[in-house]
Amino acid sequence: MPAPNDYFNVPFRRLAIGNQDEFRQPGAIKAAVAEFISTLVFVFAGSGSGIAYNKITGNAPTSPSGLIAAAVAHAFGLFVAVAISANISGGHVNPAVTFGLFVGGNITLFRGILYIIAQLLGSVVACILLAFTTGGLEIPAFAVTGVSVWSAFVFEIVMTFGLVYTVYATAVDPKKGEIGIIAPIAIGFIVGANILAGGAFTGASMNPAVSFGPALVSFTWTHHWIYWAGPLIGGGLAGIVYEIFFVNRTHEPISEF
Amino acid sequence: MPAPNDYFNVPFRRLAIGNQDEFRQPGAIKAAVAEFISTLVFVFAGSGSGIAYNKITGNAPTSPSGLIAAAVAHAFGLFVAVAISANISGGHVNPAVTFGLFVGGNITLFRGILYIIAQLLGSVVACILLAFTTGGLEIPAFAVTGVSVWSAFVFEIVMTFGLVYTVYATAVDPKKGEIGIIAPIAIGFIVGANILAGGAFTGASMNPAVSFGPALVSFTWTHHWIYWAGPLIGGGLAGIVYEIFFVNRTHEPISEF
Amino acid sequence: MPAPNDYFNVPFRRLAIGNQDEFRQPGAIKAAVAEFISTLVFVFAGSGSGIAYNKITGNAPTSPSGLIAAAVAHAFGLFVAVAISANISGGHVNPAVTFGLFVGGNITLFRGILYIIAQLLGSVVACILLAFTTGGLEIPAFAVTGVSVWSAFVFEIVMTFGLVYTVYATAVDPKKGEIGIIAPIAIGFIVGANILAGGAFTGASMNPAVSFGPALVSFTWTHHWIYWAGPLIGGGLAGIVYEIFFVNRTHEPISEF
Amino acid sequence: MPAPNDYFNVPFRRLAIGNQDEFRQPGAIKAAVAEFISTLVFVFAGSGSGIAYNKITGNAPTSPSGLIAAAVAHAFGLFVAVAISANISGGHVNPAVTFGLFVGGNITLFRGILYIIAQLLGSVVACILLAFTTGGLEIPAFAVTGVSVWSAFVFEIVMTFGLVYTVYATAVDPKKGEIGIIAPIAIGFIVGANILAGGAFTGASMNPAVSFGPALVSFTWTHHWIYWAGPLIGGGLAGIVYEIFFVNRTHEPISEF
Repeated sequence: MPAPNDYFNVPFRRLAIGNQDEFRQPGAIKAAVAEFISTLVFVFAGSGSGIAYNKITGNAPTSPSGLIAAAVAHAFGLFVAVAISANISGGHVNPAVTFGLFVGGNITLFRGILYIIAQLLGSVVACILLAFTTGGLEIPAFAVTGVSVWSAFVFEIVMTFGLVYTVYATAVDPKKGEIGIIAPIAIGFIVGANILAGGAFTGASMNPAVSFGPALVSFTWTHHWIYWAGPLIGGGLAGIVYEIFFVNRTHEPISEF
Repeated sequence: MPAPNDYFNVPFRRLAIGNQDEFRQPGAIKAAVAEFISTLVFVFAGSGSGIAYNKITGNAPTSPSGLIAAAVAHAFGLFVAVAISANISGGHVNPAVTFGLFVGGNITLFRGILYIIAQLLGSVVACILLAFTTGGLEIPAFAVTGVSVWSAFVFEIVMTFGLVYTVYATAVDPKKGEIGIIAPIAIGFIVGANILAGGAFTGASMNPAVSFGPALVSFTWTHHWIYWAGPLIGGGLAGIVYEIFFVNRTHEPISEF
Repeated sequence: MPAPNDYFNVPFRRLAIGNQDEFRQPGAIKAAVAEFISTLVFVFAGSGSGIAYNKITGNAPTSPSGLIAAAVAHAFGLFVAVAISANISGGHVNPAVTFGLFVGGNITLFRGILYIIAQLLGSVVACILLAFTTGGLEIPAFAVTGVSVWSAFVFEIVMTFGLVYTVYATAVDPKKGEIGIIAPIAIGFIVGANILAGGAFTGASMNPAVSFGPALVSFTWTHHWIYWAGPLIGGGLAGIVYEIFFVNRTHEPISEF
Repeated sequence: MPAPNDYFNVPFRRLAIGNQDEFRQPGAIKAAVAEFISTLVFVFAGSGSGIAYNKITGNAPTSPSGLIAAAVAHAFGLFVAVAISANISGGHVNPAVTFGLFVGGNITLFRGILYIIAQLLGSVVACILLAFTTGGLEIPAFAVTGVSVWSAFVFEIVMTFGLVYTVYATAVDPKKGEIGIIAPIAIGFIVGANILAGGAFTGASMNPAVSFGPALVSFTWTHHWIYWAGPLIGGGLAGIVYEIFFVNRTHEPISEF
């Protein structure tokens, strides 16, 4: 089993499975509240920027300015969302990150499920608040534009691979050193960069929670599976690749030598 | 009573109320001067960017580029305003932040009032300077666009909740650790992200001082209460939520155990 | 006399005047080379972005996108220019910063003159390189647009006050603490924020070197004095205000106690 | 011979030449994998943003918004690419950086060649993935627009000089101190600033790997030599200038005194 990591100094890897008692621990509940609030803040700004674009342009198709607005809103919003929960929950704000960390053995199954439930709830509440505060404007669901389903699917895989690899290299890796200080900025900004590429093709979600809230509130489920399968596969791949190549397994049983 | 915090290493929590002598302490006056200058610098860039947009577009309605310009000006400007007063006053630059810290017991009433007066003065002086330097162009007051008063009110509550929660998590929390290094960037950038969502609906003030200066100088008071009540409620809520869930009350009276 | 500061750990304040031998010290020459290269890199990107805008729009008037491009180019470019010379020269990259530090007693007269010469040379060489690399396109000089000379003059004073105050609070103040880590970002970003306000009125120079290179190479001197007097007065004021209010004079003569 | 540097704490300078055994060391292979993945992530976002611009504008000529999108995508993407490989390979992500470090004696020849092969492969794989995920849209190759070949050539030299000088000052220099914490941001953002100047003339590559992938996949080789010779000369010059002026050669043989 790999060595314990200190993802933002939060001890994770106790058991690969954990147990249901964990749900009743104050630390687990605190962490879930932090994930809920962080995801709410992130989705409110991110999806809100999409609604604002549609309002002020009269639902115009995506323009370069629209992509920049989406990229900046998500980059800044995710940076902050990670920063404000980093010390409490590890700052996942994304089921694909939680899954990628689980695959690498950095979070237990039960805690991971708790996080993902909190993230989905945060996204849904953000979208309900947006529906009220924008006077009932449509919450735009993620959609595939001008490419095949398989292109979109691989697009989400590649982009989320980059995101979760960034989480590993800057926040999870015990050898991260001073890079850890700017980890939340890096995690936010890789999403901003990827939106400028993928936003015009898949919406560039990289995050099932970010897609789930708008899909539920607008009740639009076309191709919704892409926004779960793509990010989870990309995030899982990043966890496997990073652990295999770069994590020193110094705590492995002596018998392996 | 909660434990003392070190918001950017500035000791705050002496008394819940404080006393008038505090006004005469050199530290309190220094802090008020720092808040005045920081708010002046922030409002000068922020409101100035709105005047510039109106000038170069001939008072066109908000476009995606206009929202991006406003978001960047406020994100960069607030980041800097917080950074340059962080070590002297704690870097509030916002009555909603001051109120949210008061609610959480992190600043005394008298010092809080002193800060808010300094912030309002800084905003008014910035707007007077803008009126002169732009040759008398109109200082645009914050206004509600296309949504009901209650939608706008809740919009400001939700956005300011995110902002003051960010202040707590990255700057006030004694367990903030290395996250504190990038706190001013996070505080500035959550405002930038929220402007890309709320700018097209309420102007996305999140800050009564930012709204008060333009309202006074242009003498436009329509819906002005929203820009006080919304941010103060959102900021107060953030203070209560953060203190309840995440602050360790290690200094509580022994009798509670 | 104020206490010695450690502006990015570079010892400055030996003598208020210095002497000509300083020019021959390896440290002073190294610092001047660093200022020369930093200013060259900054002006090449900043003025280059203006030339690019004129090229791709056919010399269109400033648009919101054009202001954003200028703000980002200067914010990013100045951040980097300060970062790459911070440990060698203190990262001034601006005669107004050098003058503001001289006024506060943080650099000697001779070294200050050496820095300013290096900065002006760096700007001129950047503009000559731009003239060649853009195939002889015009280097746009700073100009006053739609406001009186006095409005423009005060505009430059206020904006440069904010810039040099930021230098003091984040980089010069011996009590800066961890804020010093993000000082170069703050110094770059306050310029970016101010460009979004003042760019449409004065060009938002805040830096005599930035204005001098384009003025010389395009030989356009209209209102050029504004771009010296405004920044120097604003920078000097910031030095005086910051030293009076915020610098602890712990090394003052005992007789004052 | 100069003193050993600790470029992000990775020991480089063992031998000026190295030997082929180095290829078989786990550290060298790990570093090459990190360079491969970082370059892939960077080029996917960067070139992807160009494809997205062409798609949503119908191959319109470069506009200010288009330049901003390219600048932000590359600035954010390169910042992250450097951050995620900094602790493993030193975060080059660019043959011009590797060459500039070789010229200054900070990496061996064999390891340098290994890095460059990994970078080129990463770029090519990114472009192949983009071809699939965008449904076969054209990967835009770098091209000279409206200036002579020699202007473009010098443009790339000057811009890459600024980039590699930034790498030296913020990441390689053993005296970098706290500036090292924000080094990846500075390295990414100087590229963003330069794109706003040079993007309209040469595409502002500053990186042979970034140009090679699109050239190979679109099989467009017009002026391709500029994107190798310019960056390599600019990067090499930066290495020589920085080592001569700013690196303390404290480990030089005593006989030289």
